[in-house]
Amino acid sequence: MPRINFQQQLAALKDKLLAMAALSQQTLSLALEAYLTSDMGLCEHVKEIEAAINAAEREVDEMAYDLLAMEQPMAIDLRFILSVIKINGDLERIGDQASNIAQRAESQKDLPQIELPIDIPDMGEKVGIMVRRAIQSLLEADARLAESVLALDDEIDDINRMVQDDLVDLMQRRPEISQQSLNAILVSRDLERCADHATNIAEDVIFWVRGSDVRHQFSLAQAE
Amino acid sequence: MPRINFQQQLAALKDKLLAMAALSQQTLSLALEAYLTSDMGLCEHVKEIEAAINAAEREVDEMAYDLLAMEQPMAIDLRFILSVIKINGDLERIGDQASNIAQRAESQKDLPQIELPIDIPDMGEKVGIMVRRAIQSLLEADARLAESVLALDDEIDDINRMVQDDLVDLMQRRPEISQQSLNAILVSRDLERCADHATNIAEDVIFWVRGSDVRHQFSLAQAE
Repeated sequence: MPRINFQQQLAALKDKLLAMAALSQQTLSLALEAYLTSDMGLCEHVKEIEAAINAAEREVDEMAYDLLAMEQPMAIDLRFILSVIKINGDLERIGDQASNIAQRAESQKDLPQIELPIDIPDMGEKVGIMVRRAIQSLLEADARLAESVLALDDEIDDINRMVQDDLVDLMQRRPEISQQSLNAILVSRDLERCADHATNIAEDVIFWVRGSDVRHQFSLAQAE
Repeated sequence: MPRINFQQQLAALKDKLLAMAALSQQTLSLALEAYLTSDMGLCEHVKEIEAAINAAEREVDEMAYDLLAMEQPMAIDLRFILSVIKINGDLERIGDQASNIAQRAESQKDLPQIELPIDIPDMGEKVGIMVRRAIQSLLEADARLAESVLALDDEIDDINRMVQDDLVDLMQRRPEISQQSLNAILVSRDLERCADHATNIAEDVIFWVRGSDVRHQFSLAQAE
């Protein structure tokens, strides 16, 4: 097969992954809105998008596998395709976290709405920035932008720990709102996991662009 | 390179992945024991194994990437190597969950030990069976054994939901043990995620052996 065709197929694979990324970002922001506003219609919407994400994940994987099987790519193209397979998995898991958040919204729809002493919208905004930047670094093959995602992960971990500590205190003082407090702890943890997935994506972008694994630092120099 | 050598390299890759799997299983069972007995020495052991797991993950990925780059495998060998890359990631994440569980143990080492109305050892045992079976299905290329793992996942999800419900009830009645109850909820959730990873591994084994993608299909079929 001519190489120009192969480049078109790689571009198509990237487009499909970006469409997948758009779905993941959309469902995360809808799920958070559903949780914050107790909007059950949005929970339904999250479930619909989850089905679309699962279908998109399969399509991306199939395209990537076909390219590996038929084109036998080398070096940077091989790294790109392997990164796509991993990023695809992380995007699907962001969708899973969004579904978890929507389930939290559903589980407390009949409970009184409580003002909690934590800032989930702010945390959600920060995690959204991480996910967007990770995707943008993929789009632009920008390893430095990807690195900026890694730097944000510690902040989210700190926020998550504070949320847990503050809400356990609150549970002890106001046991009647234990369920709502627990839900907020679990939503915070889901957001923290989304930040982990954004971090994974950023690491894969760096691996693709630089040929080095930032977790483990190995190169594919032999392949080149 | 002669094909016999390639088969030896595939076998070596499988051995390395199985060594990684042994580490993941070991650290999960140590972390649970640390949590159940408040043994801080075991927590240290879990941290040491985490470092070993990260090194093993790197080695497995390196071998898999080198095989893809240099041997250009086709069909079932390609599927096997791609499955190894994914299973490797799931095993590393089981290690992460074990670290989370060990952190829960550390966070409550100075709190009174409470008898909670839930059975974490039993849940841990069931999850351990899922992980062991998933690994065994890989070892024996046994897609039917892998399917039996998928069937257990729903049970773990149910147990996790019951743990949450029971412990929120308890928090409301006994707010002074909210921290211990929350820790148990989070350990239960970590175990539930280990079960998810075992499920992912089983799905990858089926993909490798049968060449079909069972993700997101099994649970749909069950629900119908």
